[in-house]
Amino acid sequence: MYLDRIFKAESIAIIGASKDETKRGYQAIKTLQDEGYEGFIYPVNPKETTILGLRCYRSVKEIPGKIDLALITTPAHTLKNILAELGDKRVAGAVVIAGGFGELGEEGKCFEENIVEVARENNIRLIGPNTSGMINVNKGLNLVGLQNVPQGKIALLTQSGNMALTLITEAGLKSQMGFNYYVGVGNEADLKFHEYLEYFTEDPDTQVILMYVEGLREGRKFLQQASRTSQVKPIVLYKSGRSAKGSKSAGSHTGALAGISEVSSSAFKRAGIISVEHSDEMFPVAESLALLPILKENSIAILADGGGHATIAADYLTELGIKMPDLEAETRQKLAALLPANASLANPIDVAGGTDQNPAIFADCAEILLSDRNIHGLLVVGLFGGYGIRFAKKLAFMEEDAAHRMGKLVRKTSKPIVLHSLYNFAKPHSLDLLRYYNIPVYDSLEIACKCVEALSIYGSYRRESHAESHFQFNWGAKAIPEGQAIIDNALMEGRRALLEHEAKELLRLQGAPVSMDRLAVNEDEAVKIAADLGYNVAIKIVSPDILHKSDAGGVKLRLKNEQEVRKAFKKIMKNAEEYKPGADIKGCIVSRMSGEGVEVIIGTKIDDQFGPIVMFGLGGIMVEVVKDVSFRVLPVSEYWAASMLNEIKSAAILDGVRGRPPCDKQAIAKLIQKVSELIEAYPLIHEMDLNPVIVHEDGLTIVDARIILSEENVERKKRLSLCLTETRSLTEKR
Amino acid sequence: MYLDRIFKAESIAIIGASKDETKRGYQAIKTLQDEGYEGFIYPVNPKETTILGLRCYRSVKEIPGKIDLALITTPAHTLKNILAELGDKRVAGAVVIAGGFGELGEEGKCFEENIVEVARENNIRLIGPNTSGMINVNKGLNLVGLQNVPQGKIALLTQSGNMALTLITEAGLKSQMGFNYYVGVGNEADLKFHEYLEYFTEDPDTQVILMYVEGLREGRKFLQQASRTSQVKPIVLYKSGRSAKGSKSAGSHTGALAGISEVSSSAFKRAGIISVEHSDEMFPVAESLALLPILKENSIAILADGGGHATIAADYLTELGIKMPDLEAETRQKLAALLPANASLANPIDVAGGTDQNPAIFADCAEILLSDRNIHGLLVVGLFGGYGIRFAKKLAFMEEDAAHRMGKLVRKTSKPIVLHSLYNFAKPHSLDLLRYYNIPVYDSLEIACKCVEALSIYGSYRRESHAESHFQFNWGAKAIPEGQAIIDNALMEGRRALLEHEAKELLRLQGAPVSMDRLAVNEDEAVKIAADLGYNVAIKIVSPDILHKSDAGGVKLRLKNEQEVRKAFKKIMKNAEEYKPGADIKGCIVSRMSGEGVEVIIGTKIDDQFGPIVMFGLGGIMVEVVKDVSFRVLPVSEYWAASMLNEIKSAAILDGVRGRPPCDKQAIAKLIQKVSELIEAYPLIHEMDLNPVIVHEDGLTIVDARIILSEENVERKKRLSLCLTETRSLTEKR
Repeated sequence: MYLDRIFKAESIAIIGASKDETKRGYQAIKTLQDEGYEGFIYPVNPKETTILGLRCYRSVKEIPGKIDLALITTPAHTLKNILAELGDKRVAGAVVIAGGFGELGEEGKCFEENIVEVARENNIRLIGPNTSGMINVNKGLNLVGLQNVPQGKIALLTQSGNMALTLITEAGLKSQMGFNYYVGVGNEADLKFHEYLEYFTEDPDTQVILMYVEGLREGRKFLQQASRTSQVKPIVLYKSGRSAKGSKSAGSHTGALAGISEVSSSAFKRAGIISVEHSDEMFPVAESLALLPILKENSIAILADGGGHATIAADYLTELGIKMPDLEAETRQKLAALLPANASLANPIDVAGGTDQNPAIFADCAEILLSDRNIHGLLVVGLFGGYGIRFAKKLAFMEEDAAHRMGKLVRKTSKPIVLHSLYNFAKPHSLDLLRYYNIPVYDSLEIACKCVEALSIYGSYRRESHAESHFQFNWGAKAIPEGQAIIDNALMEGRRALLEHEAKELLRLQGAPVSMDRLAVNEDEAVKIAADLGYNVAIKIVSPDILHKSDAGGVKLRLKNEQEVRKAFKKIMKNAEEYKPGADIKGCIVSRMSGEGVEVIIGTKIDDQFGPIVMFGLGGIMVEVVKDVSFRVLPVSEYWAASMLNEIKSAAILDGVRGRPPCDKQAIAKLIQKVSELIEAYPLIHEMDLNPVIVHEDGLTIVDARIILSEENVERKKRLSLCLTETRSLTEKR
Repeated sequence: MYLDRIFKAESIAIIGASKDETKRGYQAIKTLQDEGYEGFIYPVNPKETTILGLRCYRSVKEIPGKIDLALITTPAHTLKNILAELGDKRVAGAVVIAGGFGELGEEGKCFEENIVEVARENNIRLIGPNTSGMINVNKGLNLVGLQNVPQGKIALLTQSGNMALTLITEAGLKSQMGFNYYVGVGNEADLKFHEYLEYFTEDPDTQVILMYVEGLREGRKFLQQASRTSQVKPIVLYKSGRSAKGSKSAGSHTGALAGISEVSSSAFKRAGIISVEHSDEMFPVAESLALLPILKENSIAILADGGGHATIAADYLTELGIKMPDLEAETRQKLAALLPANASLANPIDVAGGTDQNPAIFADCAEILLSDRNIHGLLVVGLFGGYGIRFAKKLAFMEEDAAHRMGKLVRKTSKPIVLHSLYNFAKPHSLDLLRYYNIPVYDSLEIACKCVEALSIYGSYRRESHAESHFQFNWGAKAIPEGQAIIDNALMEGRRALLEHEAKELLRLQGAPVSMDRLAVNEDEAVKIAADLGYNVAIKIVSPDILHKSDAGGVKLRLKNEQEVRKAFKKIMKNAEEYKPGADIKGCIVSRMSGEGVEVIIGTKIDDQFGPIVMFGLGGIMVEVVKDVSFRVLPVSEYWAASMLNEIKSAAILDGVRGRPPCDKQAIAKLIQKVSELIEAYPLIHEMDLNPVIVHEDGLTIVDARIILSEENVERKKRLSLCLTETRSLTEKR
């Protein structure tokens, strides 16, 4: 694989090697040695001859053999020359520790782009800059200076060195599962999340990929890769920068744009990613997915030795959408024979003291429960592991017996068991045994529940076919000449906004059901069109100078005859003249009033991280006041479009409430799909707003449409030219 | 205080004392001895002469001295006789361990009521039954058999023995703060949550009360006491049984009714209670409130040594509603002088390596930040405590210096500091020092943030005056004879539902603005009333046999003249006859159509835990589909009524959207207050539904009203008589 020379480097140059123990250039070498790295280590520092027993080179040039990878610990301003030297030696990759790039704002971004350019010229892929480094745990290839990273099957990708430290510390302390790789992604200047993801997807040693993300530079490519990865192994992701404060903090940290939080979560979900909302859930969830079989159905049993824990777990799992079905009659009978009369045999199962004298009964219960056809996994909550501590020492041996049996049970049934134990901290042998059998144990009831949720979410993702979610604009939608002409004409006139009738024409050409209407340039024409369309009609002003038609008194609805049309036309013209004297007025659109139905809004825009996205919501207050909307990254198939409808809180309205008939949901899904095609066919469309769309019992009508064209790459071009002029002065300053 | 003889008992009888180490009757005595209890211990068991070196009595009668408290470990069926014997000895209280009462359903409830009766006759207060016991930690009065309970200032009240064990275990392991009392509340058969709460409120040694609640038997009394308690010391509460599964589990556990979750949370908030949503937040939040000064304003700073932690904390605190204001210019200057150029001086503050060589700089930053006038508390996140472990040993001494200074800073400024450290588990000396100064330290970033939130919530509760929230129907509302006559008349006719015009009359008598309308018994009368009221009008069927008027075709709106009224009246009568042949039709209500406005709904009902409650929401889909409603336990003042309006998601609609004028919010608040008075004045009202209420720019109109009367205590009486007949057979069975 093309990143093998980086992740499995057989020779490493340490640029900025040092004898100072507090310096990275010392720590990295020390760690490589301590961790038993078997490749070549080449310290580089013009002022030293040996460091930690290794010969120190005055420059990269002097190094005799092949170099796969370089760790650059020197300041940002030294990078250009170093990269050139590394290029001469055909080095495959460089880990750049220095900060002072994109995270400092526009100036830094220019400098960063410049450095990437130099790296490309020299065929060097960069990790970072502004990174804590990279580790291949199994090879002892540890460039982070962080020792005793526990080995395991989780690949860790983060944009925060401290979060890496947090997770590695947690794994070492609490788990049997550790890491095989760690990458501090830093500013993602060259190598990006999706490239690392691809590498770890293909790596047979990696079972789970765990990520801390502040912002994605190439969000769309990331989703594309994540969809492929999720078909093979789970991705667990914490996304920060959800609030304004957090987003600002992320920006000053890695220069990332955080994007809209709701867009991220729906896109991640669609790509099969397991999103966690709290950072303290990251490791446990990844661990559970790495250790346990997934849930084959979303239905588990809770086995408790106390009502409190049972109740808390049942509440929380319900909130998380996990089903706890009733037990089969046979299961209940078997449990009843085993447990005291006051035990609760509903799900959750409370043994009610039934294990006090013999905690091995937990294993009996587990065996009975996991042989129930409705039960696909088990959450054991309470004191297990602590009976020998709390009651009598001999009970510990029974707990160990139970641990062996539960461990084997998971292997035999391929149904997962997750444990909560309040004696986890005391590290009793029985819990170590469970870990030996790959059953994780948690102190926190809530975190144990989150792990069950992850096993269910990932299980259901793998069961369902999501072949369509490639997040790629390759659905074959092509612009047609008449449509392109409308756009070209607007651009030629220097307009970014299409006029209403132009926007509707574009939609009509795509096969979308717009309202029946035409442009009238004078009163008589308006009357004629109205008669053609049939009463009653609406009239709306058309002017590139008037964007908010209602505010300008430019809309008259429900006109029932010629007289009303004439009166309305005159009034609109008068209003427009008063609203904006000298406005360029193209005339009025005359539309047949739409039939009854539910008002919805469909819009598209460009997201910071993911590019084109589509939004759906109910018209009126539900969007404006309650902000009840759903998002999808485009393109969307009809399947994914339809899934947007059920995601809003007010979804039931589409099915008809208060005696109204259900509206045509399929027509909405089809329209969203058409919008998706339109965005693919006409990449110049920057923003689209279909508002309102009236959805009838059968079909729908787009009553108003607004389309804004992008300024193409004008903005980006502006920034690039700024870069060219500023980079020199910045480089000189440094 | 009246419970002193229980909680500070100087002599204890252990009924069911035993020599078997696995038995409670052994463990309790052993624990009392081990914990240094200095009072008298009287084991009672007819088969033994001595237990653990103490003389064992054959019966309670034989005990020579005074007995304050009894621990009863024998089965349920022995209770009656034992209570009688204890009564003879003038014992003040008994802790009843046995289960088999209310948690088993109706039969068990009867038996439970019976036992309480016996206890009352004998002047004995009961803790439990179905309890794990009670502990006065400082006195060594430990009846739970749970050793090494860490001492402190938190009183713990739970309905789950395992949750008690969880919290006590956690405190011992992770905190400098422990408990002074523990009560396993059990089934709350006699002594109830509010009585314990009162005791701990008056106890000067208790700083925080921590509760795990499955259901409240006397919810209203609990709220009354909690409001008083919160004025003095904080209550931290986890409420379980939020889901159907959880509620069922709670029911089988303690026989509690869980009630509506949203009602509980709004009531708890109003009573100043700090509710936590996750059980793993219970202890940390209580600990922080016990150790730290509260936040004088809702505004803190985050101090981080890494962007990741800073971003996560900023995101989460934003979600929790905590403000992180910009720093004063002076503060920024001082920090800039101290920290490297790439440090982030916005809030969150990221030292960006500025503490790597000297972590004592944390204290410098803390001093600067807490002297900023906008900053009232500090959350320190990241590696503090681990510099000496991770980098160089000498840094540990600097961390200790910082710990001393931060500790003194909290004392000096009375501004709280909360710490997150990923090295907490390693127990470095610097973090022990922080604990010595009462600064808590957490492994979990999220939990540290929740503690900050609690300090803010409780701080703001104490600043504001909540004198009105007594949760008592003592607002002086009285029934008037005409109103009572309407109710009496309906009852005499054997109806629980008031007819629309009766309900409206009751509201009108209370001074509520109902629509102008009158009952017409025939078509001519309808025409006359319509002319009197002025067109246009609505006509609605009035029949005790037709509850859903619209479904029966019994409503006609917007009638504009005599002809339309006649036609409508005829049609309604015809429809009614078809809908329910032979229905008792009283006539039709003729109402003047209400003016324009926003439709709202106000309803009351009886909650399982709290009794009368009121609900508010917007009419139509917002209530029916989106379930966007707010609740209050009655009675409510105008202040609390007004607060309901801002709590719904669609609150902005009341202020006018899409060009509509704002509606008269004060009128709504006044109406809710009037509803509150009505419920106080007429306790026979079981349920009320004002739907719709049209709120105008000025004033409002109650367009339709439904009132259902309670069956008084018929249900309860039925159950009691059942008890009397069944208890005997049950007692015999046992």
